[in-house]
Amino acid sequence: MGKLTGTQVQELHRDHVLQSWGKAGQMAIPVAKAEGIYLYDYEGNKYADMSSLLVCTNLGHDNKEIVAALKEQADWMSFMAPSYATEAKSVLAKKLVDLAGPSFRRVFFTNSGAESNENAIKMARMVTGRTKIFSCYRSYHGATLGASNASGDARRFAAELGGANGFVKFMNPHMYQDGYTRGVDDEVCTNNYLKALEQQIRYEGPNQIAAILMESIVGANGVILPPEGYMEGVRALCDKYGILLIMDEVMAGFYRTGTAFGWQHFDLVPDMITFAKGVTNAYVPLGGVIVNEQISSYFEENVLQCGLTYSGHTLACAVGNACVDYYEAHNIGAHVVEMEAILKDFMETMVEKHACVGEARCIGLFSAFEMVKDKENRVSLVDYNEPNTAMPAIMNQLKEKGFIAFNRDNYVSICPPLTITKEELAEYLPIVDEVFTWVDETLI
Amino acid sequence: MGKLTGTQVQELHRDHVLQSWGKAGQMAIPVAKAEGIYLYDYEGNKYADMSSLLVCTNLGHDNKEIVAALKEQADWMSFMAPSYATEAKSVLAKKLVDLAGPSFRRVFFTNSGAESNENAIKMARMVTGRTKIFSCYRSYHGATLGASNASGDARRFAAELGGANGFVKFMNPHMYQDGYTRGVDDEVCTNNYLKALEQQIRYEGPNQIAAILMESIVGANGVILPPEGYMEGVRALCDKYGILLIMDEVMAGFYRTGTAFGWQHFDLVPDMITFAKGVTNAYVPLGGVIVNEQISSYFEENVLQCGLTYSGHTLACAVGNACVDYYEAHNIGAHVVEMEAILKDFMETMVEKHACVGEARCIGLFSAFEMVKDKENRVSLVDYNEPNTAMPAIMNQLKEKGFIAFNRDNYVSICPPLTITKEELAEYLPIVDEVFTWVDETLI
Ligand SMILES: Cc1ncc(COP(=O)(O)O)c(C=O)c1O
Ligand SMILES: Cc1ncc(COP(=O)(O)O)c(C=O)c1O
Repeated sequence: MGKLTGTQVQELHRDHVLQSWGKAGQMAIPVAKAEGIYLYDYEGNKYADMSSLLVCTNLGHDNKEIVAALKEQADWMSFMAPSYATEAKSVLAKKLVDLAGPSFRRVFFTNSGAESNENAIKMARMVTGRTKIFSCYRSYHGATLGASNASGDARRFAAELGGANGFVKFMNPHMYQDGYTRGVDDEVCTNNYLKALEQQIRYEGPNQIAAILMESIVGANGVILPPEGYMEGVRALCDKYGILLIMDEVMAGFYRTGTAFGWQHFDLVPDMITFAKGVTNAYVPLGGVIVNEQISSYFEENVLQCGLTYSGHTLACAVGNACVDYYEAHNIGAHVVEMEAILKDFMETMVEKHACVGEARCIGLFSAFEMVKDKENRVSLVDYNEPNTAMPAIMNQLKEKGFIAFNRDNYVSICPPLTITKEELAEYLPIVDEVFTWVDETLI
Repeated sequence: MGKLTGTQVQELHRDHVLQSWGKAGQMAIPVAKAEGIYLYDYEGNKYADMSSLLVCTNLGHDNKEIVAALKEQADWMSFMAPSYATEAKSVLAKKLVDLAGPSFRRVFFTNSGAESNENAIKMARMVTGRTKIFSCYRSYHGATLGASNASGDARRFAAELGGANGFVKFMNPHMYQDGYTRGVDDEVCTNNYLKALEQQIRYEGPNQIAAILMESIVGANGVILPPEGYMEGVRALCDKYGILLIMDEVMAGFYRTGTAFGWQHFDLVPDMITFAKGVTNAYVPLGGVIVNEQISSYFEENVLQCGLTYSGHTLACAVGNACVDYYEAHNIGAHVVEMEAILKDFMETMVEKHACVGEARCIGLFSAFEMVKDKENRVSLVDYNEPNTAMPAIMNQLKEKGFIAFNRDNYVSICPPLTITKEELAEYLPIVDEVFTWVDETLI
C-alpha cells in the first residue's frame, strides 16, 4: 500500500502537522489499515473503533459498497461547480428532503458541520430580519467564527477573541447533573428550564431573535437525553415568538439514534436541519442544511447570500447517495434498535456494579457513561474544563486493551459504527467492565 | 453513466437545491461529462471551461492520473480522524511546507478556502494576543462569519447582519480604476496607498492588530495587479508593527500565476499561507493553512484551539499529493509561463482594438478584461454592485459560442485549466474578439 514505515508516517506528522485541539509535535498512532469496526497500526495491533472516529464513520471502515460508488463517480466526474446541475447532487437533494419529511423542500450543501451551522445561521438572519441566535451552553456546533460562537462548550473561547455579535447562550437541562431523577422529575425539570428560557427570550427581545440552534441529542457534551416534553416546549416557544428552530443533526443524524434524525424521537418538526458526518460516512467531506417550505420559498424570491466553491460537490454527493441507500437497503435503523437493547442492558449493569459510574445514557448507538467520584452526591470524577489525569488514564486503559472510546469532560462515550454485530459487542464490552473495576479500585 | 435524463437532473436541481449566491427555482445546465478543458451537457453541446469552474480545476476535468490516485486511496482507506497519523496526510504536509519554502514548518488542514481563512485568523489572534484583522475592500475570503467579515466585496453584507468584531477594512490599490498608469505611476501609487495604510494602522492602534489578510493577487475582484513595491511595503509595515501577514492563496496558488504561490512574484515572505482549490484540483474538498516556524513553535507550547472533523482528510490528502506531484512532474509552472505569453499578446490586441476594453491584466493564466463604456475617462461599463444587464449579456454571448468565462463587476476573467494547449487557446480566443466587437457595436 504505502511507501513509508509507520515510524516515518509518525515523524512527518509530528514535525509538519498542526494537530486539532492539541499541541503540535506529539506522536500519533499511524494507521495502516481500517476495516469494519477495526483500525490497525503499522505493527499489526488491532483496535475496535468504538467511537466511529469522531462519531462519523457510521457505516464502518472500508465499506465496499460505498467505496465502489465513490470510485464509480470518480470515473465519471469528480467535481462540477455549484451553478451546474449534476445527477449526484440533484438525486441527493431529493433523497434528503424525502428523508426529512413532508415539510422540507430544499438543501444547501456545504463541506462540514461547522459550515452547515454557519449557513443555517445566515439564512435564519436573512429570512427573519432578526439577528440574535440562541444556543445551549451544553453544546458544540463547530469551530468557525459563527459556529464556534454558537457553541457552548469551552472550545468556544478562542472564537471569542475579537468575538461576534448576537450569540446568546441559554442553559439546557442535564437531569443527572442538575439533581433530577429521570422518569420521575421530567415534568418539573422541563417546566423549570422552559420557564427560564422564556424569561430569557423576553429579556433579549423576542423580535430580535432569529433562531434557536440546538443539537437534537447533545453529542460531544455527553449524549444528554432531554427530559420528557422539553424539546416540544422549545418548539412551542419558537412558534409563540416567531423564532426559527434549527436542529443540528451533525452527530445525531443518519441513524445514530436509530431514526434518520434525532429530532424524530420528539413530537416536533424543526425549520432547518443541519447535517454532515454520517451523510457520507466521512469518506468525502460533505455537510448541508435542509430547509422547510417557508425558508425555501423565501429564497425563490430573494438571493441567497451564501456560497462556497464546493457546494454540492459531485463526488461527495455521490457518496451521500450511496450512504443513504445503504442505510435503507440494509435496514440500519432497525439494526441499531436491536444493538441498542444489548448496549443499554450492559450499561445498566455497569451502573449497578461500579462506584465510578453515576449514570448511563443510551439512545440508539449513541451513549455515554457519567464518571463520578462520589456516586451518592453525584460528584463528577473531574472538574469541568480543568486539566486532569483521570480521564486520559481511563481512555488509555481502554485503548491498551484495544478499545477506543470517545471522551469529553467526565464522559466515556461509546458510539460504534452502526454496522457493529452483537458478537462484536459481546467481545468488546467486557473490556469496559474491566477498566471500570480498575477505576473503582485506583481512581476514586 | 447516470440513470436520469438531463431534464430530470435539471428539474430536481430546480426543485430541491438551494443555489449559491442566487435565487432558488432556476434551471441550471446539467453536465453529463467533463474532460480536459471541456464540459458537455446532456444534449452533447460542448463548452470550453475557460474559468476552471471557480478557478479551481487547475489540472482540468477527468485528469486520469489524479483520478487513479484518488481510487487507489479509496481502496486503501478513505478517512482517518485528525488525531491519527496517515501516510497521505504526513506526506502532503511535508510537500506543502517544502513548496512554501524554508521559513515554513507546519500545516493545519481544513475543507475549504473559507475554513482556511477562519483558522488563520483564529491562530493570528491566539499567537499575538491581539484581535483586529485588517483586510482589503477589493477582496474575497469566503462566506463563513469570520471569512466573510474579512472579505471586502458585497458578498460580505449578509455576514454583517449580527456582525463580528475586530474586522477593519482598508482600500487596496487598483491602478486602472484609480487613474494611475502602470509602469509610470507605480511609485506614487504605492506611496499613496502605503501612507494611507500606515495612518489607518496608527489610528486603529498597532498593538491591537493581529494580522493583515490579503490575496497575493486579488482574484474574483478582478485579477488586480498591485503596483511595484506595494506588497513589499505592506510586509514592511507588518514588520514595523509586529503584525502577522496572512497571504490568501486560495485562488492564486498552485501555479495559477506560474509560480507555486502568487506571493512568490514579490520580494517578501508571509507568515501564513491559506490555500484550497488547486491543491486537489477540486476533486475532493481540501484547504489549509501553512504556518512559519514562529507560529508553529507557539503551538508546540500552547494548545491549538482549532479543530474540525475532517482536518487532514485522508482521501483529500492523497489527491493533494497526486496534484502536487502532477504540477511538478508535468512542469506546469513552465507551461503556464508559455501559455501566459500567448494570452497576454491576445489581450493586448483586444485593448488596442476594442472601445469596450479599458485594460487587460494577466499573470500566468489568471487574467481579466476591464470592460468600459468610456475608454478615455475609464468609465466602467456597469456601476459597482448595481444590477445590470450588460455583463450577463456578455457572458451569455460567450457561453452561446461555447466559451465559459468568469465574471464579477465589470470584469471578464479568463482562467482556463493550466493544462490548456496553445492549439486550444488559438481555437477559442477569437470568440472573445467576436463578442467584444458585438459589445462595441451594441452595448456602449
Ligand atoms: C453536533 C455537531 N455540530 C457540528 C459539528 C462540527 O462539525 P465539523 O467538525 O464537520 O465542522 C460537530 C462536530 O463534532 C458536532 O458534533
Ligand atoms: C481568494 C479566495 N479566498 C477564499 C475563497 C473561499 O473559498 P471556498 O469557496 O472554498 O470557501 C475564495 C473562493 O473563491 C477565494 O477566491
